[in-house]
Amino acid sequence: MSEVHVARRALLRERCAAAAATDAPPDAVLVTRPANIRYLTGRPACGAALLLGPGGIDTLLGPASADSPHHYDSARDDDLRTGRLSNPEGDTAVAAADLAATAGARLLAVEEHHVTVARYRGMASVASALRLTDISAPVEAQRVIKDEEEISALRTAAEITDQALGELLESILVGRTERHLALELERRLIDHGAEGSAFPTCVATGRNSGLAQHRPTDRRVEEGDFLSVRLGAQYHGYRCQIGRTFVIGTAPEDWQVELYDLVFAAQRAGREALTPGMACSDVDRATRQVLRGAGHAEALGSSTGHGVGLEIGEDPRLSPGAMGKLDACVPVTIEPGVHLPGQGGVRIDDTLVVRPAADGGPELLTITTKELLAL
Amino acid sequence: MSEVHVARRALLRERCAAAAATDAPPDAVLVTRPANIRYLTGRPACGAALLLGPGGIDTLLGPASADSPHHYDSARDDDLRTGRLSNPEGDTAVAAADLAATAGARLLAVEEHHVTVARYRGMASVASALRLTDISAPVEAQRVIKDEEEISALRTAAEITDQALGELLESILVGRTERHLALELERRLIDHGAEGSAFPTCVATGRNSGLAQHRPTDRRVEEGDFLSVRLGAQYHGYRCQIGRTFVIGTAPEDWQVELYDLVFAAQRAGREALTPGMACSDVDRATRQVLRGAGHAEALGSSTGHGVGLEIGEDPRLSPGAMGKLDACVPVTIEPGVHLPGQGGVRIDDTLVVRPAADGGPELLTITTKELLAL
Repeated sequence: MSEVHVARRALLRERCAAAAATDAPPDAVLVTRPANIRYLTGRPACGAALLLGPGGIDTLLGPASADSPHHYDSARDDDLRTGRLSNPEGDTAVAAADLAATAGARLLAVEEHHVTVARYRGMASVASALRLTDISAPVEAQRVIKDEEEISALRTAAEITDQALGELLESILVGRTERHLALELERRLIDHGAEGSAFPTCVATGRNSGLAQHRPTDRRVEEGDFLSVRLGAQYHGYRCQIGRTFVIGTAPEDWQVELYDLVFAAQRAGREALTPGMACSDVDRATRQVLRGAGHAEALGSSTGHGVGLEIGEDPRLSPGAMGKLDACVPVTIEPGVHLPGQGGVRIDDTLVVRPAADGGPELLTITTKELLAL
Repeated sequence: MSEVHVARRALLRERCAAAAATDAPPDAVLVTRPANIRYLTGRPACGAALLLGPGGIDTLLGPASADSPHHYDSARDDDLRTGRLSNPEGDTAVAAADLAATAGARLLAVEEHHVTVARYRGMASVASALRLTDISAPVEAQRVIKDEEEISALRTAAEITDQALGELLESILVGRTERHLALELERRLIDHGAEGSAFPTCVATGRNSGLAQHRPTDRRVEEGDFLSVRLGAQYHGYRCQIGRTFVIGTAPEDWQVELYDLVFAAQRAGREALTPGMACSDVDRATRQVLRGAGHAEALGSSTGHGVGLEIGEDPRLSPGAMGKLDACVPVTIEPGVHLPGQGGVRIDDTLVVRPAADGGPELLTITTKELLAL
């Protein structure tokens, strides 16, 4: 993977130079957000700092630690210097700023959306000749369009997720608690090869069903309940998301079928709107207007989908205020839901990759059926 | 719990006024770190902002969301105003700064160690008449000494943790993977009433054993292995930690017994050093010098223990560079370990509460035996 990461870092240098066209370009770029460091180096890097320094020299500084993994040990690839702080109280970003100044940098671009004010002051104080400037999240922008290797990791993550969910559907659900079902799903994700859950698994039943941000409780699944689940595997660092709603027991009631059909229609409208060049706010509108037409606009959250990748919620956002258009090879979720207080509700989430119509349109990664199953 | 939180907020106001003795005291204080907001309001508060405003009016602002829990809904207690942003793209800290300025504040204290530079700039731009200043982490300082209700939550968390670990020890371990054992422990924590794990459960076997920051792998437990586990329950928001090392199968080898006895002696030295008034660096030294005397100083991490509470790693730190002294009613971990590369190692972690000798000395919360068990 080393060439990929070298190329990504080279592109970041170019972008930073171009973004500063009217100003002096930065001599050095400091990346501290862990997902961005992972994207640029292939290494998980909590608490680390990546310096793209003067003269094309890139350095990854890790925190002092007796036994952290070997990500910072002497170079595994020749294109990235690695080191670790010797002072356990030290700050990797401050040390990297010092290194940049020592190497002759005069203008250091930092991630102002990630660096705290205290850390920023620390960097400014160690290297008084160094000016700090913002890089306006170019790594996040670079991460939006995925290469085939990244999409392949997401595809595997989705396969694992479908398998875990499929097995759960074959087991007996009535009488089990939300918490236990959530743990069971997480165990099955691991069984099928996930590194872990992409996010905390959500299982919501009865009056909790359809809540977007529900934390599993000790409520047990009962006959007649809606059961909504949301889970995702992490594979090679990439995270996908699926959400499904089922009805427990014999036949669903009329209101359940109606609500399900409505959310399904909204979710389909969003999926069908996923084409390269479409405005992100228009995809959101496609989903949202189906629910609004049925009087459920209030029940919707601030967005109806988002990008996925090394983080579960990344750019682009699919929301009314979102800027920008979709590109091909951008994986996103489409995830509308309606929750009726005191009654319950429905959520349906998929992860898809935007593809041109000539390539068959959006690629659905999470293929578990969206029929309303009575379990 | 409402009176407790009102009193905590009143104390924070006093501390901020006192800290600014030589300067003008801030008119308002903005708290954004989630654990600090929880401490001051009793409400989990991801993405929220708590404003201690002019005139003694406290306001908790939550992000816009259709169905997040009711923490921000119309006042559940009369002493805290609550609200939620209507704009889904809005930032709660920026909105709180605006609110402070509108209420007539001129100097707003913020948590510079938590606020990002970008957010800080956003706050500064909405309220140009408002000056921003740092509050130097007084909430973290306030959180160090726990009241009896907090210690009681920790005690329950420790009981749950001991139960989960005890059950695991009765099961068959050989042939099972680190990942599965970790998931099993997490399930048992939930079974016994935990809200969740205090931190990702660590299970390390064979040559992985004794690593502090190991992520469970697919390695299976084998006869003759050291098996080290580290886990903790979260209960009412409070998090404890235990670590134990066992030997698998018949009788331990000589090197295993020697290494275990050494780490045990180091851990006991640390525990026995826990008295009110003792310097944090001296507690660390007590632990560390036992290992250094045996030639294992290199194997130790940067600290040998830390405070626990609403976060798993909070003040005080027990490390060579730590400042300050221990007080009574401060819960800390003592957690030395030695890992021999290629061979494995031992970790022993306890959570204890510092108590004066007159009260019987340190209160051990995690009571699972520290004998070297052969399982």
